Amino acid sequence: MDVIYLDNAATTRVSEGCARVAVRVMTEVWGNPSSRHRMGMDAEDVLRDARKTVASELGAREDEIFFTSGGTEANNLAVLGGARGRGRAGWRVIISSVEHPSVDQAAAQLEAEGFEVVRIAPRDGNIQIDDVAAVLTDNTALVSMMLVNNEIGTILPVAQVARLLRRKKSRALLHCDAVQGFGRLPVSVTALGCDMLTLSGHKIHAPKGVGALYCRKEAQRSLRAILYGGSQQEKYRPGTEPLPNIAALDQAIRELPRTPAQRTEKIAALNTLARQELAKRSEIIINSPEDGAPHILSIATGCIKSETLLNFLSSKGICVSSGSACSKGKKSRVLSQFGLPDHIVDSTLRISFSDDNTPEDVLALCAALSEALGTLARFR
Amino acid sequence: MDVIYLDNAATTRVSEGCARVAVRVMTEVWGNPSSRHRMGMDAEDVLRDARKTVASELGAREDEIFFTSGGTEANNLAVLGGARGRGRAGWRVIISSVEHPSVDQAAAQLEAEGFEVVRIAPRDGNIQIDDVAAVLTDNTALVSMMLVNNEIGTILPVAQVARLLRRKKSRALLHCDAVQGFGRLPVSVTALGCDMLTLSGHKIHAPKGVGALYCRKEAQRSLRAILYGGSQQEKYRPGTEPLPNIAALDQAIRELPRTPAQRTEKIAALNTLARQELAKRSEIIINSPEDGAPHILSIATGCIKSETLLNFLSSKGICVSSGSACSKGKKSRVLSQFGLPDHIVDSTLRISFSDDNTPEDVLALCAALSEALGTLARFR
Repeated sequence: MDVIYLDNAATTRVSEGCARVAVRVMTEVWGNPSSRHRMGMDAEDVLRDARKTVASELGAREDEIFFTSGGTEANNLAVLGGARGRGRAGWRVIISSVEHPSVDQAAAQLEAEGFEVVRIAPRDGNIQIDDVAAVLTDNTALVSMMLVNNEIGTILPVAQVARLLRRKKSRALLHCDAVQGFGRLPVSVTALGCDMLTLSGHKIHAPKGVGALYCRKEAQRSLRAILYGGSQQEKYRPGTEPLPNIAALDQAIRELPRTPAQRTEKIAALNTLARQELAKRSEIIINSPEDGAPHILSIATGCIKSETLLNFLSSKGICVSSGSACSKGKKSRVLSQFGLPDHIVDSTLRISFSDDNTPEDVLALCAALSEALGTLARFR
Repeated sequence: MDVIYLDNAATTRVSEGCARVAVRVMTEVWGNPSSRHRMGMDAEDVLRDARKTVASELGAREDEIFFTSGGTEANNLAVLGGARGRGRAGWRVIISSVEHPSVDQAAAQLEAEGFEVVRIAPRDGNIQIDDVAAVLTDNTALVSMMLVNNEIGTILPVAQVARLLRRKKSRALLHCDAVQGFGRLPVSVTALGCDMLTLSGHKIHAPKGVGALYCRKEAQRSLRAILYGGSQQEKYRPGTEPLPNIAALDQAIRELPRTPAQRTEKIAALNTLARQELAKRSEIIINSPEDGAPHILSIATGCIKSETLLNFLSSKGICVSSGSACSKGKKSRVLSQFGLPDHIVDSTLRISFSDDNTPEDVLALCAALSEALGTLARFR
């Protein structure tokens, strides 16, 4: 059975170009970048090229890019390493209440270390800048806010927070988890005004197992490592670099459409088509905001359990998600924080697009949903 | 120019089989193992198979294997997570003074947190079990000792330490960094008697970017995570698993020769040949013990700087290392700890073999060394 994959916010297919580059590095440039001989230097060149590509894409400098094992590690490095470096026990850390678990749980660890963590909940569907201003104190060490919420696609006001911090002359570091926005929305660290930014390879058709943290040069003295070992990556991230994956991330960035318009036009059209088709079934509620990131469309039936619907769709070869992949089907904290009532949270599906998808995929999904609404047991 | 690669303790060529498996997973089984649909379940199968292979190779259970981004992260998880989970500030941690930086520096972090770290130096070329017994206290939380020293190949007495801990009814966790022994020496967690064990993929022909930590089931309640996020890997190691690399690690283990004899016979013969050839130059000193791991042969000229010799050999296409790759040519702490005088430390080369090497490689190296001794400037 052919698979219709509409779960691209969970992970994406590795592109042929990325797979090819990864294999080339595995079999031809397989030296250790730390080795002081030609095999090592060739490997170091691959590393430097990738760093250049990431830096250029973000509008950053090469020495501001640190490769990690993925988004989770980069978020941990930013949140733990940034807060510990800029502040200490008793200081405040501000995050949104709809962050990815790798930010939220890293913040919980900071709480255990004596930091005071303030979680700002969305109001009227998004984080309100006044709510951030209201809790910003002189001893705030870190503010962490995601660019695009991974469960419903809301774009959070990161640049406004940056302006707030500047206006208030805050010494807080600003971190942005851009895992769900990178490659789709314009992500410039100067336009966003953040000190640190996380991105992940496997959300943009690179393999799983690579991410990167941007850390502004001037902010690096406030960044503490969270892993300890060799002298790789200025000791901010010791350990032999995962070179095949790093080279594939480089390639994935090169394969991104060049202009912002080109990066969204196809998925935006699919999103619009899905909304039109789903509007034909009055039961279906759209959770995602109209002005959210176009690759994420969160919907709810209000009457069929997410898990039931997920299994039904999977049996037809259609892959979507309930909340996020990471939560493995547990009730979504994030959807409740967005103010959605329980019967919506319990019946939510996340549809997420990539440029691999076609209008036929969307129509097949909508037909299957319609069939599900006609046949599956309703809980209310 | 053809390259003669004799730096296999730094990293190894990715085997064709491993590269093939990695690409297959990238392009065919690219779902997120946490996703609750068929693409996710197929990915989860790959993950489970790999866990089975690693567990079976170590004589462990599937639920005792946690995949990491590499040896450094696994060592950090064991040392930081084990000490914090079993003890607290004021408790003791015992390591050898010749550990890899990822153990040594993680222990330094524990010192900063208030643990008392005791580093035992080798005597007569190896760690003496009496020296461990002498510093073992009731409040020792963790003992960490590598299986094979990465710079000179000495095999450390891990099983004897395990017996000591049992005899003393110690509550200390025993961790073994087996990165340099795994795949070459027999590594059975029951025979070693350790609670935790680290292995790395890229030392056995898998790609860089994957490692594993074994943690005995009963010891898991004393293991704290060092990264925070989603519910992957029982929360001991959150983050989307690097599936292509994990599958390649599975393959690398399958490609290991089956019997212990088969795993060492070729490299042992190369080691013997190198020792015979090098004995013809009276200047050359062998640092490695006779009974060390056969894939590592540390030598010194006593008169030519490591860096100079390294560059000379590299210009001839011969790749070796000074101390370890991770130290990037800095003076080796480890060699000094083994009691080597400065002029030996400063002129040491590490030659390390894999089954890819041939007697011709060894002869070419020895000829080049002989030429170097005849032409390069001597510092003494």
